[in-house]
Amino acid sequence: MKKISLLGATGSIGTQTLDVIKSHPDKFTLEAISIGRNIDLGLKQINEYKPKLVSVQFKEDYDKLLKEIPKNTKLFYGNEGLEEVAANNDADILVNAVLGSVGLKPTLSAIQAGKTIAIANKETLVTAGHLVTAEANKFNVNLLPVDSEHSAIFQCLQGERLQEVDKLILTASGGSFRHLERSQLANVTVQDALNHPNWSMGAKITIDSATMMNKGLEVIEAYWLFGMPYEKIEVLLHQESIIHSMVEFIDGSVIAQLGTPDMRVPIQYALTYPNRLDLVGKKRLSLWEVGKLHFSKPSFDRYRCLGFAFEAGKSGGTVPTVLNAANEEAVSLFLNGTISFLEIEEAIEKALNWHQKISSPTLEEIQHIDKEVRTFVKKVMVK
Amino acid sequence: MKKISLLGATGSIGTQTLDVIKSHPDKFTLEAISIGRNIDLGLKQINEYKPKLVSVQFKEDYDKLLKEIPKNTKLFYGNEGLEEVAANNDADILVNAVLGSVGLKPTLSAIQAGKTIAIANKETLVTAGHLVTAEANKFNVNLLPVDSEHSAIFQCLQGERLQEVDKLILTASGGSFRHLERSQLANVTVQDALNHPNWSMGAKITIDSATMMNKGLEVIEAYWLFGMPYEKIEVLLHQESIIHSMVEFIDGSVIAQLGTPDMRVPIQYALTYPNRLDLVGKKRLSLWEVGKLHFSKPSFDRYRCLGFAFEAGKSGGTVPTVLNAANEEAVSLFLNGTISFLEIEEAIEKALNWHQKISSPTLEEIQHIDKEVRTFVKKVMVK
Repeated sequence: MKKISLLGATGSIGTQTLDVIKSHPDKFTLEAISIGRNIDLGLKQINEYKPKLVSVQFKEDYDKLLKEIPKNTKLFYGNEGLEEVAANNDADILVNAVLGSVGLKPTLSAIQAGKTIAIANKETLVTAGHLVTAEANKFNVNLLPVDSEHSAIFQCLQGERLQEVDKLILTASGGSFRHLERSQLANVTVQDALNHPNWSMGAKITIDSATMMNKGLEVIEAYWLFGMPYEKIEVLLHQESIIHSMVEFIDGSVIAQLGTPDMRVPIQYALTYPNRLDLVGKKRLSLWEVGKLHFSKPSFDRYRCLGFAFEAGKSGGTVPTVLNAANEEAVSLFLNGTISFLEIEEAIEKALNWHQKISSPTLEEIQHIDKEVRTFVKKVMVK
Repeated sequence: MKKISLLGATGSIGTQTLDVIKSHPDKFTLEAISIGRNIDLGLKQINEYKPKLVSVQFKEDYDKLLKEIPKNTKLFYGNEGLEEVAANNDADILVNAVLGSVGLKPTLSAIQAGKTIAIANKETLVTAGHLVTAEANKFNVNLLPVDSEHSAIFQCLQGERLQEVDKLILTASGGSFRHLERSQLANVTVQDALNHPNWSMGAKITIDSATMMNKGLEVIEAYWLFGMPYEKIEVLLHQESIIHSMVEFIDGSVIAQLGTPDMRVPIQYALTYPNRLDLVGKKRLSLWEVGKLHFSKPSFDRYRCLGFAFEAGKSGGTVPTVLNAANEEAVSLFLNGTISFLEIEEAIEKALNWHQKISSPTLEEIQHIDKEVRTFVKKVMVK
């Protein structure tokens, strides 16, 4: 029986993690969850899964929930609450499915508490990969990927040796606007951008897919998770999202992981690793029904964020922190209608040009820069 | 340094095995080879690779070669010679790349001598899989696949558990006549049949690809190599031969092995397993240059041999022996112009209908039936 704690229970990855837990009641129990703003859904989850420990984001929700939850459920709120869910309980494994760099601090605490980390929160690795991987090494803790691409690579690497890897090949659908030229992107709407062709995901990651910053963040994530130099990481456009990613070895052999787009596969794999379990309600991949798979090379002119990410990754230090914070802020401004789609790139570029890099930042420096960049982006982008 | 002996040095797999050995002189040495009828090429190989031990098929070639080979090379001929190359020398690993069921006896001897077997000779497993796998288990010897499909599956299974496999999916190019309807096959020529779209291989296997008996034999080979029931083995048409085969797991995840069509990849993998080595002169797979991969479902009406093979495999006992012997004889009759392309199927069907199955045949019974079937096929098919 694996005991699981879950940061970000009401989000897309969070709810699918709960589905996986529910489908194998003999294998998994839910120890603790954190909830953001969706208190109604959170309350339903509490009543259904009965976690021992719950944390909400805001004091007002804490006060409201206190009257409604079962007596023996411990309730917390705010950053302290995130820490409780991440580290101060009996869970074997922490699923970090929160959005953005807010996941960093609790992840470090969970590592220090010796918990296995299933990481869906890529911003944590992008913004402070050197701190997270150093702590994971120090406490001898596994960082298991939950992103479909990194789970694919992780699966392809089972039974293989990292020193025999020639390339990690991350596949990318190209996002909502993949059929548009760059010149057609000036006036696209939030609604258009949220219409992802293959995956049903949260709003932020769907926008990141449309700009391909998502793939850029994944490149940096792959660098940290697999310790692979950027020269050995490639991105391949593959519109069907059937091949989730690949590893090319020194003998020319390529191992790929495929499947119908279903985030429960990488979630469950992280929870059952190194074993596999039947995926309840799975839709089998039938390649003869799919018929064709398409591949092409992404252009760094068309997808500027992809180039920004490779450059930020190679530059290292605080530069990926700036990339990530500027992107989070810019996407948020786009989603609330303040800036246009192409201004997301503009905001990131401005922040990267403005920033003075620190080579080996501390957690405090990262958190400071993260805030500073968000303020900068708001200042220069909001007219 | 791995010491290698090689049955069938002058064939397509044999010469490519020698290429691999030559490309890593610090890793491999050639201990012994067997040569069929191509004595001129064999003599060149002897002078270049200087194996300690050589066997030829015929006494007359033995007499001729005896004057021409280096003094310290031991020379043998016939079945006894095959045994010497397979078993009576210092090799760590035997590459069995002979054609047809003649490879069976020396393979068993090599297993009994404790040598690892790299098996390119699929007829050995088809005709007597129960004997070969039982001996391999008894002597704790690895059977490593060299066929590209089985090597692909073997690679996909590294780090995985067989009991978590849901399906083995063998890909098939469809062979030389894949664009033709069944009604168009009546008058195809040997020359047409030998024109394989993706792979440069020997004549027999190229014809087997055109009838898809090759895939049928591979299904039976997969059954024995991976101990997988026939219900869990599928065949998928994939015209580009880029995905060499796949494994589907119980969680819906599919692991595939891909690459440009190059038999040196599976040959070298069998020689370096469980490690990988740089493949000298490899052509990297570039999926964006390939652009598209196509998949479809094979019809058992269009490819009758595929159905024969599944039925023979499920029936077991001597039935796969009959399938294989009838096919070898029929292909030979087709290649020398005696029968037509569609009469290959007819010959196999007649032999399967004629045969009285023995459930657990001995080596002697298998060898007897193998001969008997060949005689039967000649008798009923040669007018």
